[in-house]
Amino acid sequence: MELQFETRGLFIASKSPESYPSPRAVLLGAPLDTTVSFRPGSRFAPHAIREASYVLETYSPRLDRDLEDVALIDQGDVILPLGNVPKSLETIYAAAYPHLSAGRFLLTLGGEHLVSLPLIQAAHKVYPDLVLVHLDAHTDLRTSYQDESLSHATVIYHATALLGKGRVFSLGIRSGTKEEFALYGERLYGAPYEVYGKLPEVLNLIEGRPVYLTLDIDVLDPAYAPGTGTPEPDGITTHELFRSLYWLASHGVKVVSADLVEVLPAYDPSGRTSVLAAKIVREMLLGFAR
Amino acid sequence: MELQFETRGLFIASKSPESYPSPRAVLLGAPLDTTVSFRPGSRFAPHAIREASYVLETYSPRLDRDLEDVALIDQGDVILPLGNVPKSLETIYAAAYPHLSAGRFLLTLGGEHLVSLPLIQAAHKVYPDLVLVHLDAHTDLRTSYQDESLSHATVIYHATALLGKGRVFSLGIRSGTKEEFALYGERLYGAPYEVYGKLPEVLNLIEGRPVYLTLDIDVLDPAYAPGTGTPEPDGITTHELFRSLYWLASHGVKVVSADLVEVLPAYDPSGRTSVLAAKIVREMLLGFAR
Amino acid sequence: MELQFETRGLFIASKSPESYPSPRAVLLGAPLDTTVSFRPGSRFAPHAIREASYVLETYSPRLDRDLEDVALIDQGDVILPLGNVPKSLETIYAAAYPHLSAGRFLLTLGGEHLVSLPLIQAAHKVYPDLVLVHLDAHTDLRTSYQDESLSHATVIYHATALLGKGRVFSLGIRSGTKEEFALYGERLYGAPYEVYGKLPEVLNLIEGRPVYLTLDIDVLDPAYAPGTGTPEPDGITTHELFRSLYWLASHGVKVVSADLVEVLPAYDPSGRTSVLAAKIVREMLLGFAR
Amino acid sequence: MELQFETRGLFIASKSPESYPSPRAVLLGAPLDTTVSFRPGSRFAPHAIREASYVLETYSPRLDRDLEDVALIDQGDVILPLGNVPKSLETIYAAAYPHLSAGRFLLTLGGEHLVSLPLIQAAHKVYPDLVLVHLDAHTDLRTSYQDESLSHATVIYHATALLGKGRVFSLGIRSGTKEEFALYGERLYGAPYEVYGKLPEVLNLIEGRPVYLTLDIDVLDPAYAPGTGTPEPDGITTHELFRSLYWLASHGVKVVSADLVEVLPAYDPSGRTSVLAAKIVREMLLGFAR
Amino acid sequence: MELQFETRGLFIASKSPESYPSPRAVLLGAPLDTTVSFRPGSRFAPHAIREASYVLETYSPRLDRDLEDVALIDQGDVILPLGNVPKSLETIYAAAYPHLSAGRFLLTLGGEHLVSLPLIQAAHKVYPDLVLVHLDAHTDLRTSYQDESLSHATVIYHATALLGKGRVFSLGIRSGTKEEFALYGERLYGAPYEVYGKLPEVLNLIEGRPVYLTLDIDVLDPAYAPGTGTPEPDGITTHELFRSLYWLASHGVKVVSADLVEVLPAYDPSGRTSVLAAKIVREMLLGFAR
Amino acid sequence: MELQFETRGLFIASKSPESYPSPRAVLLGAPLDTTVSFRPGSRFAPHAIREASYVLETYSPRLDRDLEDVALIDQGDVILPLGNVPKSLETIYAAAYPHLSAGRFLLTLGGEHLVSLPLIQAAHKVYPDLVLVHLDAHTDLRTSYQDESLSHATVIYHATALLGKGRVFSLGIRSGTKEEFALYGERLYGAPYEVYGKLPEVLNLIEGRPVYLTLDIDVLDPAYAPGTGTPEPDGITTHELFRSLYWLASHGVKVVSADLVEVLPAYDPSGRTSVLAAKIVREMLLGFAR
Repeated sequence: MELQFETRGLFIASKSPESYPSPRAVLLGAPLDTTVSFRPGSRFAPHAIREASYVLETYSPRLDRDLEDVALIDQGDVILPLGNVPKSLETIYAAAYPHLSAGRFLLTLGGEHLVSLPLIQAAHKVYPDLVLVHLDAHTDLRTSYQDESLSHATVIYHATALLGKGRVFSLGIRSGTKEEFALYGERLYGAPYEVYGKLPEVLNLIEGRPVYLTLDIDVLDPAYAPGTGTPEPDGITTHELFRSLYWLASHGVKVVSADLVEVLPAYDPSGRTSVLAAKIVREMLLGFAR
Repeated sequence: MELQFETRGLFIASKSPESYPSPRAVLLGAPLDTTVSFRPGSRFAPHAIREASYVLETYSPRLDRDLEDVALIDQGDVILPLGNVPKSLETIYAAAYPHLSAGRFLLTLGGEHLVSLPLIQAAHKVYPDLVLVHLDAHTDLRTSYQDESLSHATVIYHATALLGKGRVFSLGIRSGTKEEFALYGERLYGAPYEVYGKLPEVLNLIEGRPVYLTLDIDVLDPAYAPGTGTPEPDGITTHELFRSLYWLASHGVKVVSADLVEVLPAYDPSGRTSVLAAKIVREMLLGFAR
Repeated sequence: MELQFETRGLFIASKSPESYPSPRAVLLGAPLDTTVSFRPGSRFAPHAIREASYVLETYSPRLDRDLEDVALIDQGDVILPLGNVPKSLETIYAAAYPHLSAGRFLLTLGGEHLVSLPLIQAAHKVYPDLVLVHLDAHTDLRTSYQDESLSHATVIYHATALLGKGRVFSLGIRSGTKEEFALYGERLYGAPYEVYGKLPEVLNLIEGRPVYLTLDIDVLDPAYAPGTGTPEPDGITTHELFRSLYWLASHGVKVVSADLVEVLPAYDPSGRTSVLAAKIVREMLLGFAR
Repeated sequence: MELQFETRGLFIASKSPESYPSPRAVLLGAPLDTTVSFRPGSRFAPHAIREASYVLETYSPRLDRDLEDVALIDQGDVILPLGNVPKSLETIYAAAYPHLSAGRFLLTLGGEHLVSLPLIQAAHKVYPDLVLVHLDAHTDLRTSYQDESLSHATVIYHATALLGKGRVFSLGIRSGTKEEFALYGERLYGAPYEVYGKLPEVLNLIEGRPVYLTLDIDVLDPAYAPGTGTPEPDGITTHELFRSLYWLASHGVKVVSADLVEVLPAYDPSGRTSVLAAKIVREMLLGFAR
Repeated sequence: MELQFETRGLFIASKSPESYPSPRAVLLGAPLDTTVSFRPGSRFAPHAIREASYVLETYSPRLDRDLEDVALIDQGDVILPLGNVPKSLETIYAAAYPHLSAGRFLLTLGGEHLVSLPLIQAAHKVYPDLVLVHLDAHTDLRTSYQDESLSHATVIYHATALLGKGRVFSLGIRSGTKEEFALYGERLYGAPYEVYGKLPEVLNLIEGRPVYLTLDIDVLDPAYAPGTGTPEPDGITTHELFRSLYWLASHGVKVVSADLVEVLPAYDPSGRTSVLAAKIVREMLLGFAR
Repeated sequence: MELQFETRGLFIASKSPESYPSPRAVLLGAPLDTTVSFRPGSRFAPHAIREASYVLETYSPRLDRDLEDVALIDQGDVILPLGNVPKSLETIYAAAYPHLSAGRFLLTLGGEHLVSLPLIQAAHKVYPDLVLVHLDAHTDLRTSYQDESLSHATVIYHATALLGKGRVFSLGIRSGTKEEFALYGERLYGAPYEVYGKLPEVLNLIEGRPVYLTLDIDVLDPAYAPGTGTPEPDGITTHELFRSLYWLASHGVKVVSADLVEVLPAYDPSGRTSVLAAKIVREMLLGFAR
């Protein structure tokens, strides 16, 4: 009798990492969970998303492609110095940069939204003409939050400063201060409440530049993704989100790296937010890591 | 070093109540939770909604208005004699009447739907030509329920008797007895399953009269508001509800008072029902307290 | 003073079973919960659905019909030999066959999806030209799963083998292997991602044959039915499901038996999945048991 | 093949009620849940306790007796007029009195502690020299609570007034006002913090009189019974409680009726409070209904 | 900068499995979860216990020994054919036998109690004079349960038949039928309600024979281990359990293999049952794998 | 009719803060929740403990004293700069020092255990001969943890460095590394696994010096306090803890300040950990603020 022993997660199920001397895609966990003002718990997301992936198949009928067809490695979670934000961001940068500079599609699982900052910095280092596509319920454009400059609420402000005018595209936004909303149309492109319908316009404006896609799970309505830190009612449906990802994948948008942040498994006893996150991960890998 | 200490809830965050000698809007909690037949727990709603309000911003991008612009006081919760329904209703009436007679926009957080009865009575005392706009999954038109006349299931029956023929507009209804549904078209206006599409017709019928708006959270589909006592599938989306509120606010409907009832925080571990309720409260205050 | 004591569930509330010497419709629980690969717990569904039914009225405004108008008995749950799959399936067959051969509309509450197999076998015995209408997120077309032929993941494969080519109609499917999806168009009719829009085509193809309707609750988006074992994002709304049931009921489709499977109450603290299941049961009974 | 269908709860599992034309013991549910000041939910206790009883055996090794040996009927739950306290108490009285006057051992499942009042009144009517043994964390000796005389917090005060001086024995008490604690030693017997060690003294003082035993589940430490409304730390263990019940059963104390109140299933996801309550019910039935 | 990546669980944290060509101790998961009559979910236990182990240190102050001092490998979970009990038991036997015959201390994490049967069979094959020490709340001595011979409720009956008279020692038992309790003193040794106090007597009776220790977590009071399938009130404390393990470890009892079964993580939101299980695992490894 | 409006928490219920120009006791919340390695959530503790206090009476029968007899103010929660540990510690110091230097008994609610560090520093500034009594499951004696010196796992190490040899008394400890346990008997006093029995010895050693009492809720067995971050099995009972507090209060130990840390409300759906914490707070205030 031949025995089988369990492995973990859909994303390493098909082949062993050793089979890929030069992987095309890398999955990385970055469980930073330090600057949140309301609910903590995004540190548990990378683990929960991997576990939840068992519910899914490796094949996507929409994309007609299977994870077996992608040279993918799951790098595990980077270990962060607890409570030390600057060193945590350095650590994430150091874990991400080698993969990006090797031309791999890096998909990072947060953690809170601040993890995107070192990832965008690393991607910008490799791709100087990088643009940011930002799907979120919140503007995240504060210059400081509760006296701190490095915060989940300031991450897009920092990205805008780094990438420059016209290089940040915020979609699905429905919460922020009056001052933050006033910035749309000025320094950056903002499409409050909309995602799918604005993609052709965005495509036109990015003019073939490499794209970093940051996806805060709360861009979705809390009915679809209840496991998040700052649920904002009146969001988009999962159907609109998946349609948007398929649109990007089929229109030649060059997504060089992406992240998925602010999943808080503890607030969703049904586990469907983590399953949804795992499906987003699968579709991103199948759609963007070609 | 200057220290800050915590206040409670978005609705009193901007300025101290003492700043408003003559407030324009008043928030009141009425945690009555006595006549429910299925699940209790709406008594915890006012507290949970205030707590959940921390997730939100004070600014509404849809209405382009901020809570700082409203002379608002949060009156706290009225304390009710436990298990004594008639005296509880008297107490709620006594807490509400002074604000209404002073011309303030009173927004009350239930509690079960029976809290609306003394509130409608008080508003009717001040505005004799009052009409009721009723958003709910249930008819609430029984004349008695489990042998009791004063019940969450009879509240609209009592309101109809008080306000008179043609003065009650029920929208979004999808559950009731055959006898109750037969009353639509007779004594009162009923739009089963619909809300937004019927508003122009309702606007026309109310002919500029002052409106009391009672909003049972279960008018929404349970996917959006799982924390409620009698979840009824196949309801409206939050998007339709907010669109309806914005429509009322922008078409000059004179909403003089409103309530939000039947939120049961304990049945929603994600807390999104309370956050949604807090956003409804914010948009009502910004939209109706002008 | 006359005292009343509680009975259990909406489906036996109106009249006592003894009143129906020849019932028209039968409700049966089949809490099989053995072959699931991910989350167990569907064994608790029949009980939870009966309890949740108290939230509902006996009257359907959409169908304008009341449970009092249906000669219905609730047969309770069949007791299954624990951990013995073949004997469990025999037991379910034995409980179902007498009702089907007596021409009653049998509605069975799972349990996992494998319960459908003996039910379809019994219905096929009584109605040799039976067709299967299958609403589900998953193909369930594997020939074996984790080395076992009798499994929730193989049930439609077995049904297809039994009923023959062109007799199985799968709607709403959005998850499976590449090989399973390839079967659509070959041995069986598959409408990935769609339900309501395909019904006229299905009606045409079934040509008046008797229909067994199997409904896996996960055909719905997890936002509507979080209490299930393998939640698959991007599903249909409850609104689309109910519209589909009303369409079938009003177009003379001869549904001779049905089941509702894969409800897992423990993963939905709001209880709304069970309430939704109870409403589906009510609408099926009112719509199909004529 | 012979089929079996499920019955409900351990307490009716052995024989059908019809087998007992003159039962020796009666189980009754009284889901009153109206006057609580903190957490509601005891209305769900009778149902939850019956469900939880499936975990247990019918045989008690400590008492070496089986439920099959007791002529027991489960009367179900009395239906109460919602929100009407005086009529609810009348209803409970009316349901209890016939059993008590027929000499049956009546065991009632609350509901909140106020249910004990009509039960004690009915027992006192039948047994004029009744004494009350009261196991609880709280004194419950207020004369009124939040302006109401009929309340869970006043029930022992009312019992003391009814039964007279020296007829009430409160054990395990560890919470109350200074004024309430001052009453011990005056009108009534109080043994703060103790139960088992005081039983011989209590036995001596009751001098063979018939006993009504009221058991508030919160006499136990919340570690053992977390599912309750007002958990008071530093209580007795389940081991001490069961030892006390066995002691009473084996020392000829004539317990003519009993109740078990303040179980709140919703606050205990493990369900162990309900299982514990079911075991207490079994041991009381086996120990006292001889 | 040197990066660290996450490993999983305390039991593999210190060194890589490759470092031990001839391990002294083996940890194995056996997530069988098929024959339970009440609550399923023990399949999740091995994973949850490994996760929970992160809370603990590798050092035991009571035993003054560290996991680093044990040549330990974690073998992962054996994959079982779903719903096929006989083949599942064969699979567990096949996974266990090689380790036992190589003289390793095998510690298996259930799964339901039926997993012990093939493990005892394998241990008996290697050690023909094996005795069983059985810590449990339940007798588990039925000859069949719900018509099935292979069941969690029959496992000790089967073990008794295999090992022979006087070779099974049941401790802590407090639930069973009258017939089962009658077997104590006949075919097997039973110490109802007691554990620690009986160990010297047990030590004397086993006369130096090799011991298989089966530990059903429900031997503990549900206050300490709420996450279990059939919680039985009035059990032993964790303090008594640990004292018993230390006593066995320090009195030269030759425990050659052990298991820990019936942990159900889902019923304990605090996670303390899994942490407790992990600590029991650590102390068994440190105490018995010398 | 006179209306009453809600106040918040037992500790400000009796009189308004304004009544005490020179309070004797101060309650302060310090929701630091940044350096934890396992579960976050202690930030919600101060709020949850105040809410839970409503379950309790203001009178302690053990101490025969009422909160009305203490000149107490509740200072609310200090607002901390998110994710900035050094500034957070400064902020807590600044909030605490004025009360301590004014001779008030300051009782602080964490937050994680690191909050104790600035509080001990402030108390040491005011009382140079301060000793620390430390009740905990864990040694917390690491010099750094995951590369960080300021951590919940290093707090007692820092305190030992500050207060000096023989000035720290750790009781109830049952988890740590071999190196940490080796420190007991050297630099500091450690009583692994014991609390109450060691108090006379501790009393003797502290020789009348002022005491800071730090109480990590996990010194208790997780059965009593499941809502904590690193539950360690085999702890003390609540009964032993309260007996210890009463012993300290009645033997003239001069406790000048205290804290209660590591309560995580989210892991305890019964809420009993917060109720227990509130009772500990009440007994500390009544026992130490004389």
